[in-house]
Parts: sequence; structure tokens; C-alpha cells
Amino acid sequence: MAKTLKIGSVGLGRLGYEHAKNIANYVTGAELTAICDTDAARVAQVAEELNVPYTYTDVAEMVKNPELDAIVVVSPSMFHAEHIKLALDAGKHCFCDKPLDTTVEKCKLAEKAVEAHPDKVFMLGFMRRFDDSYAEAKRRIDAGDIGKVVLVRSYTQDPRTTIEGTLKFAPHSGGQYLDMCVHDLDLIRWFTGAEVKRVWAIGGVFEFDLYRELNDADNCCATVQLDNGAMGFMFTNRTHGAGCNVETEIIGTHGTLRIANVGAKNLLQIVDGSGAREEYYPDFLSRWHQAYINEIQEFVSCINEGRKPGVTVYDGTKVSQAAYRCKESFETGEMLVNE
Amino acid sequence: MAKTLKIGSVGLGRLGYEHAKNIANYVTGAELTAICDTDAARVAQVAEELNVPYTYTDVAEMVKNPELDAIVVVSPSMFHAEHIKLALDAGKHCFCDKPLDTTVEKCKLAEKAVEAHPDKVFMLGFMRRFDDSYAEAKRRIDAGDIGKVVLVRSYTQDPRTTIEGTLKFAPHSGGQYLDMCVHDLDLIRWFTGAEVKRVWAIGGVFEFDLYRELNDADNCCATVQLDNGAMGFMFTNRTHGAGCNVETEIIGTHGTLRIANVGAKNLLQIVDGSGAREEYYPDFLSRWHQAYINEIQEFVSCINEGRKPGVTVYDGTKVSQAAYRCKESFETGEMLVNE
Amino acid sequence: MAKTLKIGSVGLGRLGYEHAKNIANYVTGAELTAICDTDAARVAQVAEELNVPYTYTDVAEMVKNPELDAIVVVSPSMFHAEHIKLALDAGKHCFCDKPLDTTVEKCKLAEKAVEAHPDKVFMLGFMRRFDDSYAEAKRRIDAGDIGKVVLVRSYTQDPRTTIEGTLKFAPHSGGQYLDMCVHDLDLIRWFTGAEVKRVWAIGGVFEFDLYRELNDADNCCATVQLDNGAMGFMFTNRTHGAGCNVETEIIGTHGTLRIANVGAKNLLQIVDGSGAREEYYPDFLSRWHQAYINEIQEFVSCINEGRKPGVTVYDGTKVSQAAYRCKESFETGEMLVNE
Amino acid sequence: MAKTLKIGSVGLGRLGYEHAKNIANYVTGAELTAICDTDAARVAQVAEELNVPYTYTDVAEMVKNPELDAIVVVSPSMFHAEHIKLALDAGKHCFCDKPLDTTVEKCKLAEKAVEAHPDKVFMLGFMRRFDDSYAEAKRRIDAGDIGKVVLVRSYTQDPRTTIEGTLKFAPHSGGQYLDMCVHDLDLIRWFTGAEVKRVWAIGGVFEFDLYRELNDADNCCATVQLDNGAMGFMFTNRTHGAGCNVETEIIGTHGTLRIANVGAKNLLQIVDGSGAREEYYPDFLSRWHQAYINEIQEFVSCINEGRKPGVTVYDGTKVSQAAYRCKESFETGEMLVNE
Repeated sequence: MAKTLKIGSVGLGRLGYEHAKNIANYVTGAELTAICDTDAARVAQVAEELNVPYTYTDVAEMVKNPELDAIVVVSPSMFHAEHIKLALDAGKHCFCDKPLDTTVEKCKLAEKAVEAHPDKVFMLGFMRRFDDSYAEAKRRIDAGDIGKVVLVRSYTQDPRTTIEGTLKFAPHSGGQYLDMCVHDLDLIRWFTGAEVKRVWAIGGVFEFDLYRELNDADNCCATVQLDNGAMGFMFTNRTHGAGCNVETEIIGTHGTLRIANVGAKNLLQIVDGSGAREEYYPDFLSRWHQAYINEIQEFVSCINEGRKPGVTVYDGTKVSQAAYRCKESFETGEMLVNE
Repeated sequence: MAKTLKIGSVGLGRLGYEHAKNIANYVTGAELTAICDTDAARVAQVAEELNVPYTYTDVAEMVKNPELDAIVVVSPSMFHAEHIKLALDAGKHCFCDKPLDTTVEKCKLAEKAVEAHPDKVFMLGFMRRFDDSYAEAKRRIDAGDIGKVVLVRSYTQDPRTTIEGTLKFAPHSGGQYLDMCVHDLDLIRWFTGAEVKRVWAIGGVFEFDLYRELNDADNCCATVQLDNGAMGFMFTNRTHGAGCNVETEIIGTHGTLRIANVGAKNLLQIVDGSGAREEYYPDFLSRWHQAYINEIQEFVSCINEGRKPGVTVYDGTKVSQAAYRCKESFETGEMLVNE
Repeated sequence: MAKTLKIGSVGLGRLGYEHAKNIANYVTGAELTAICDTDAARVAQVAEELNVPYTYTDVAEMVKNPELDAIVVVSPSMFHAEHIKLALDAGKHCFCDKPLDTTVEKCKLAEKAVEAHPDKVFMLGFMRRFDDSYAEAKRRIDAGDIGKVVLVRSYTQDPRTTIEGTLKFAPHSGGQYLDMCVHDLDLIRWFTGAEVKRVWAIGGVFEFDLYRELNDADNCCATVQLDNGAMGFMFTNRTHGAGCNVETEIIGTHGTLRIANVGAKNLLQIVDGSGAREEYYPDFLSRWHQAYINEIQEFVSCINEGRKPGVTVYDGTKVSQAAYRCKESFETGEMLVNE
Repeated sequence: MAKTLKIGSVGLGRLGYEHAKNIANYVTGAELTAICDTDAARVAQVAEELNVPYTYTDVAEMVKNPELDAIVVVSPSMFHAEHIKLALDAGKHCFCDKPLDTTVEKCKLAEKAVEAHPDKVFMLGFMRRFDDSYAEAKRRIDAGDIGKVVLVRSYTQDPRTTIEGTLKFAPHSGGQYLDMCVHDLDLIRWFTGAEVKRVWAIGGVFEFDLYRELNDADNCCATVQLDNGAMGFMFTNRTHGAGCNVETEIIGTHGTLRIANVGAKNLLQIVDGSGAREEYYPDFLSRWHQAYINEIQEFVSCINEGRKPGVTVYDGTKVSQAAYRCKESFETGEMLVNE
């Protein structure tokens, strides 16, 4: 067996904690050697739970630890570029959760840091690409099973049951296009193999007035035309009547692939007075549990096997540019060209 | 266009009225010329509604009407053989709803009546055979699509929402095996092309004590072995948690066909707090609406085109024999040979 | 029973013949008394088959027949307004298949003809509204089951298996937006209860060069914003990998309704080497068979019961206007306001 | 974090290797400290791959290793009771894959060994109980969601694509009832909370003559009546037209739960010329991958948390007794009482 990679993980929020647990328990060829968060008490608690030898409250300190081979960045989005640079400059491989950062300018800084360390593995975490169903769809498209890709439709719907937490987070989320649609934009680029050329984004406040104050929407969509002529349609909302729904459909000239969330929670069908039904995943962490494991596993395997990941730093910048263009289109009401 | 067949229909109960409406409105090449029921007021009411010129309260009188070409029998089951004989002896073609009659002895009388009039069309109403899905399954089996038929599993489940009417009807129904399983037995014979050789039937009273008084069950099943080695499994209950559920599965050596009721009511999928769901048909009349039309249409077309129907009087006897054997097995607890 | 309405039907093309058969065989309270087509041989053939007493090759002649109560117009689209006016001016009720006509100007002429005869029933044939699944979706929306309507997504996909005939018809079809999207536009207006305000339509030629010559697309979509803030997305193509697919999804603030074509052909599920699968309807006539009957039935019932249909002449004009706006957006590449 | 349990695993066949990998990589709170197999070369290879410090070719030697806390038995079924006794007598906790052993007599020996060491954790591996869907079904039944359990129907179907290996294994498998139905029997007992009272088992050779020579069947079923009046139906075959299909349905007096394999491989729906379809898992190892992890995880957690597992040694004996009774019924053609 290959040597065990020693990983330091930054950020212990909801998703950061998930990543920490996954590295400690489910990723093979790696171990969780250090954790870092500004909340010292949380750091101590998680270190105890997961048996982590080194703990930090400052990323700049952690990256100096000579035992560490790689850094996993799950800090707040606005620090991503900074932490990426710290990690790479310290000679560590680096995995960063999406988005690359919160502005296109800072994305460019991350690009520079990556380019300055071509011998290091850098990977961006678009975890949907590592879900079994999405991965199989990509393989079938690449194999030509559905002909030319014509339209990618992708929905990201959060359950209304979690609306309270969502509303609290809303002012810091960057808005629907930057927080939610980035996943769909990445999928559209990935499945079409093309870049977003023109966008028209519309939406509105159908229920929660807070979004109006934020110049945002609780339900919105964006239509995009790609530079190879293919089309994309995204819809996102915070008020899905059932659980977490992420569905993506790829229509080709010879066939269609659909990945929906229906019945996804497990294989159970329930027949009762409401008919025959399947329940949804209650939230995104349960939906993408295995994909989050798979993506870190891929990062670790890339390092251990000397490969480069399929998701690059440039994917992060391209997606952010397109998301900002959608946001601008939504705000101005105009169809815009993305250059 | 062929000449229009003149039909007299016997019985204006729930299903008899459905047949009368179908003949009057949806069956081509035929018209409803006479109706008969012991309830004179009901006869008058339906005649007015459907514009029927001749009305009767006595079947023996109706069959003397020289204008009539054919008789449709939807009277209570215990009169079927008698009415079939009356119709055929009067020189009319005859369609009879299932079952052929309530005892094997009376089924044999019906057989004799049919044999005495080989020039007349006689057809027994196993309407499931005339449902599009069942008809297509049969075509695929005959085409060899699933190899040899190994197992036919068939469920007949009534919704608990209609339990009140069901309990009232229970003492006169003949019991689950004769009232419900006859449909499944006909399908098992039809899809396997074989006869029932051995049966073991079990069941019990899980909720409604009335069935115990009747020496019957509210939930019961029967396993059968056919004379070509194929197998059949039936389940029937009166307490289905959702609507009307009739589902049939045919497992072959090379493939499987399934006809289920799920989502059958129409194509609507509803996503709400209960998940993603499809509703069931509320009752058997809505489930089989088109099949009831199709079967009378086939009867009319057989007469108009000089063909013989695929469902014979012998199918009625064979099914009744097997159903009685199941009932006996249920009552004695023994596995029985059907001879 | 109400008096039987006498109908004269114009046009015996593929759909016209379907309507003629439906009136003759399945619509209650009406009979097919006259047919008209420029092809005299076809008229004679259908009259023989369906037992139709009066035959014509000129609509102006047919509408003079004093026995007729109503005219059903299924002539080529460019004659619709003219035939509507002929029928109404002759004192007949009138049903017209979609679209109302081929230009907004001619739609306005039809409006005037209808307004001149307020005592006559006029109904436009958007048959999807009369499909059981669509009708139930509308009832649930009106009952508030899914909250406010946020997005209506509607696809109209023709199977590639019928591409040969489609290509022949393409030069006379009016293009995807006028021929296909009019159905989706009607549904979007119906389900949202609002009018199309802004449109952006994109598409391309992914496979069949003929569409490039016609300044049309073989795969295209349109995004619309309605005047109440709701959104609509349409996609249409001529190259669906499986059979006829029409699917519509209505996302509300509290729930979602989906009407898809999958498994629609019937209830049969086939398990074989390809997995577990349901087949599609092979073509639009089989998909909408019952809806075509239902719409004429509604027209007849409106007349016989003194009611006015829910689909008005103005629906026809509004849909055509929006479709032309989509076409213009597709041709110019611009997002356009629909006024 | 709790101390890490040290596990020695016996047997490196297809499933034994799967268990070894799971313990080494995915089970938390435990590590794979020793492996044992009669094939020394295989032991060396797996030890290298999974970094296992101790290796053995003799179970009796391995259980002497004082570092080991627990033994996982995945040796050939005929050695299960012997290895269980060796492990427990050596003071180790013990997990044993199903079946408990190959005869009821040897099952009783295992029972005695377990009873002699009440302080040790013993767990039998019926992994289906640890699949998320099955576990949720059990929770819902226990919560009374579907009322009283009336019928459990359970299928175990192997894909015909793997028939070659299946035929090689057939002479040593114990036959369909002991090799396949034991899973279904365990589920029927688990979901009904009752014991098998009467059985009738039928089947036949529909395709592969080898099974006739073995006095076995390639397609067979068994109907059982439980001592509380509930019913069970099992079907098993080696010739499933698609992939691995395990489906279980629990019909209660107020609702039904279904766990099917359709669309289980992942969430991908494929639309092409064959219709809209979902693929099956290709084999049982991919179907139950996570369940195999979960069951060992439960075993480890029981030890670390001082709990006793829900699957006992007596479950193993009861299932074997019922399976033998089914086999005897199949061979004699009689309905039999299970005492």
C-alpha cells in the first residue's frame, strides 16, 4: 500500500466538519493529521472526537507543520484564495471547496498561486462531478451515447423545511447565482465541454421579503447559450415543497440522460393514502455524502499516484465569471454577453 | 360501414349500468336497443337517460324481441347460466360478464348451451385481457420476448376507502377466491397457456371480523403449480392502504413484464411534503373503464366480422374449478390437486 | 337525453380524419352529418367508412346546409380564420383546431367574427388542456395545492423515428415556435394565469441542415417572463431519442406538479438486458387520442348545455403573438419585450 | 474516540476479501490486524495490499494471537460453527457471515458455543438488515405505519450474465433454498416478528439441466404461513433477464412498503430507442456494498459500546430449519409443517 498522506484541514463549519470526518474515517491512503479553525473550543472538540494530533487556530501556522503533505480548505469562501496561496507556497498540495473565491479578481490570485507551483496538486471541489450518477452520465456522453449535447437543464432546490437557517445565511451567501447556480454552471460547462457565451437571468421574490432587501430572489432561473451553440437552463429556489432536489438532464441529439433526486434517499417506496411515493433526501449533506468522500479520495489518489485532477483552478474562475454575469443580468433585466 | 348490431342488456347494477352506457355511447357498430332489470323504476330511468327504445323486467320476455341481435348478461352471477341459455336458445349472440356462474355444475350447463348453438358468438367477460397493458404483455409473451414463462404473480387489492360497501356485499360475493381471484386465475392460465394442477391457499382475518363469520378472509393468497411446471401466486385483500391496485408480473427465463397500477390514474406526479408521488385509481370502474369498452367492442366486432372471441365458455369453467379448489384449500389448510 | 347535435367537419388530413372518427364514434350528444375536403376521393372514402350522409369539397357550400348545427375546422392553418368566419356567419357554432391562424392579423379577423356572433359557441382546440393529467394539474393549481406558480417548464419533443415526414412538412410548418411551442405557450399562460411579457429564444441546427435553410432550428428553447413575475421555459426538438415526449412541470412555492410521458404508453414495465424500462407513445396522435375526443365532447356539451368554453378566441391570438415574438428573438438573438 | 478494535478475518474468497477491505478502509473504531486463508499466496497478496501485520493459514493459530479482540468468519459455510467455537473459546468476539452453518445440527453447536460465552459479542451477518432501505422499512413497521403485517414477498434473482460462475458453484451451494432463500426467510421472520409454521415449495428446471442432476431448480418459490397468521412468498432464480434483483414488499393492513432494485444502481435514467430506463446493479456485491460495511460497523460498535447485536445465533438456526423444510417440500411435493 502507498504511503499514507498526512492532511491538515481548514474550517470546521458544517461542511468542514463533514470533510474532516470523511478524511479521518473513509478516505484510504490518507489520514487527518491537523485541523484548524478560529474557534479554539471547536478545534479541541473535533480533535478529541477524531483523534487528530495537531490543532491550530491560524492557517499560516498550520501550513508550517513539516509533517503535513496536503491542505484541505473549507474556510469561508472569501478566504479561499488566501488559504490556497498559503498552502501552496508552503509546499503543500491543496484541495479547496467551491467556490474558488467570492470575486473574479481573487479567483485570478488563486490561479497565479497554482501556476507558481506546477509540481503541486491543486483540486477544486465541485463534488457533483464525483457522484456516481453524474460520473456515469459524463462517461456516457463522452462515449457518444446520446449524440451531440443540445441542452443541459439543472435544478438546485433547497427544502423549505430548512428555510430558517437559509434566511440567516442569505446576507452572506453571495446570492442565488453565486451560491447555488455555480454548481449548475459547472455541470453545464462539464457536460457540454463549452464556455458560457450569453446569459439571461430572471427571477423574483415569491415568498420571502428578505430577498428583496438583498436585491436577490427566492426563486430564479438563468438561460445560457454556450460558445458551441449548446444551451443551458438553470433553476434554483429556497422553497422546494419536498426535500433537497438536485436534478440534471442532458438532452442530446440521440438520447437523453436524467439524474433526479426522486426516490434517491433510498430504494423505499411507500404506499399509503397519499398514493405510491418516494421520499427525498432531507438536505444536501445527506444527498452528497458519498460524493464528498469520493472527491477527497480522488485528490488523495492524484497525489499518491502522481496524477492531476480533472477539476482545475480555471474551472473555478470560469464558473464565477458566468455566475456574476447571471447576477448582473438578473439585476439589470438585460440579456448579456459573457466575455 | 357494417350494419349496426342491436343489443339488449340484462342487469342495471353498478357494472351493468357501466356496460349499458358504454354500448350506448362508445361501442361502434352497435346500439343499445333494449334493457332489462327486475327494478322497473331503474329501467325507466336508464332508458330515459340513454334513449333506449325497449324496456323489460323479465329476461325471458326480452329475448323474444325479434329486433335484437345480441344479449349482454350482467345480471347477478347466480343467474348467468340461465340467462346465457335463454339468449342462445332465442337465437341471439351472447356476452356474459365474469364469472360464468357460481358453481361448476351451472358452468357445465352454460357450456352445453353454447355447444348447442355453434353458429352463435358467445364471449365471457374477463375484461383485464382487453386492457392495453395486459394485451401488450400477452403479445410480447407470445412473441417469445421473455423466454419461457416461469412465474405469474397477480394481486387484486380493493381500497380500504370503499370497505363499507364491500362488507355489505361480502355475504353474497362467494368469497375472495371466487369473487376476486378468478381474475388472477384467468390471467395465470392465459399468460402460461397451462391449467392449474395443484393449489395451496392460505389467509386470515386481519381486521374485519365479518369475514371470520363467513369462513372467509380479508387478506389471502394462493400459490398454484400449473400442468406445464410454471408457477402462479395470487394475493387479494380488501384493505389496500391506497386506491385500487391490480398488479401482475410475468417472470420469464429471459425477461420480466410488469403491469402495475402505480401512477396509473394518469401521468401526474405530485411533489409535496410527502415526497414525490403518484396516486392510484380510486376504484375498479375507473381502472378498467376502457377495458370494459374494449371487451364489448371485441364482442360486437366478432359478430360483425364473423369471428370467434378468444375467451371461451370453457375458460369460465376452468377458472371456477380452480377458484373452488383454492377455497377448499383455504378452508382445509391442505395443499390440493386440481383435477 | 339532449337532442343530437349535427356536425360538419372541414379537413380530412391526418388530424382531421382523427376528429371525424371521434365525432362519428365516441362523442356523445352529436353525430357526424357532413364532411368537407378539397380531395373529393378522400371525402367519398371517409363518408363510406363513417356513414356520413352529406359530403362537400367547398366549405362555403357546406355551411349552407340547414341541418348542420356546428362546424369543426381542421383545415390547413392558413384558412382557419376564413373558415371560422364562414361558419359563424352562416349561423353555426364553431370549433377550430390550433393555431387560430398563421398571422396575428388573421387572428384578429377571427376575433372579429367571434365577437359578431356572441350567441354562438366558439372554441379553440388546445387539446392538452383536455388531457386528464393536465386537467387535474390545473384543478390542483386553482385549489392552491402548490402555492403561487413560479415556473412552468414544458417540452415538446417529436421522435426521430418520424423525422422523414417531419422534414417534408417543415417548410410549411411555420417553424418550431409557431408549430410546436404554441402548445407550451398556451400551457404556460393557462397555468400561470398571466401573459408573456419578455422572451429570449435560442436554438440551433444540431443535425438536419434543412432547418438552417429555413432559418429555423431542429432543437430550440425559449425562456419567458410573465407579467405577474412568473417564469416559463420551453424546449422543443425533432430528434427525440425515444418516442413522442411532451412533459410539463409546474413549480410552485409549496409544491411541484409533473406530467411526463414516461411510461405513458400504458402501464407495462419491461425488464430485460437494457434494465427496467417503460416505452413512450410512438406519436402525438396516440399520446393525445383521448384528449382529442374530450375537447370535441366539451364543445358539444357547451352547445347542448348553453355554456361557453374555457378556451377563447383571444387565447389563440395571445399565443400566436407570443410565438411570433419567440421566433423574432431566435432570429435576432435579442431578448424582446412582448407588447 | 474509543480504543481501536483489532480484528482478525478468516477467509479471503470473493466476499471475504470484500469484508477485509471494508474493515481496513471504511469501518471506524477498528483495524484489520490479521487475515487467514488456506491459500498462503492469497494471504500474502492481500496482506501487502491492505497493510495487514499478521497472516495465517490456520484459524486455530490465528485465534491464539493475544492482540486480536475479534474474529470475522467468512470461511466456507461448512466450517462456520467450528470457527465460531474456536474464536469464542479463545476469548474473542465473533462475527460470522450467513448462513450459520450448513446443517441444523451444526447450527446447534454454534448456539452452544455462543451460550458458553455470554460476555462475548456474537453477530450473524444477514447484511440486508443493514441496508438503509431495509432498515427504514423495519423502523416504519415497528412504528405501526402500515398496521399489521399481512404478507412479505421477497425475491432474490441473480443475473443470467453471471450464470457461468453460478453453475460452477451450484454443486457446493446447498441449493436455492439454503443458498438464496435464507436471506428472504430472515427478512420474512424479521418483518413479521414471527416464526415459519407451514411451507409449500415448488419450482423446476426451466433452462439449465445441471439443476435437474442436482435435484435442485433454476427457478423456484416457497409460500410460508407464520405462527401469527401472516404470510410469506419467496421467489428465486438464476436467470434474471437484467442485473441483480432483490426486491421485498411488505403489505400491511394500512399500507405497503416496497424495496426494489429498479433504478438502484444510481439515479441515472437513460432515454433512448428502448424507452426510458434505469439499469440494475450488475451483481450482489455492488448492490450490498454499503450494507456489508454497515454490518461490520454495527458489530464493532456493539463491542466498543457494550451492546448486543439484533441478529442472534438463534436467527441463524431458525432460518436454516425453515430453509431445510422448504427444500424438503420442494423434493417431496408436499406441504409441510415446520416444527
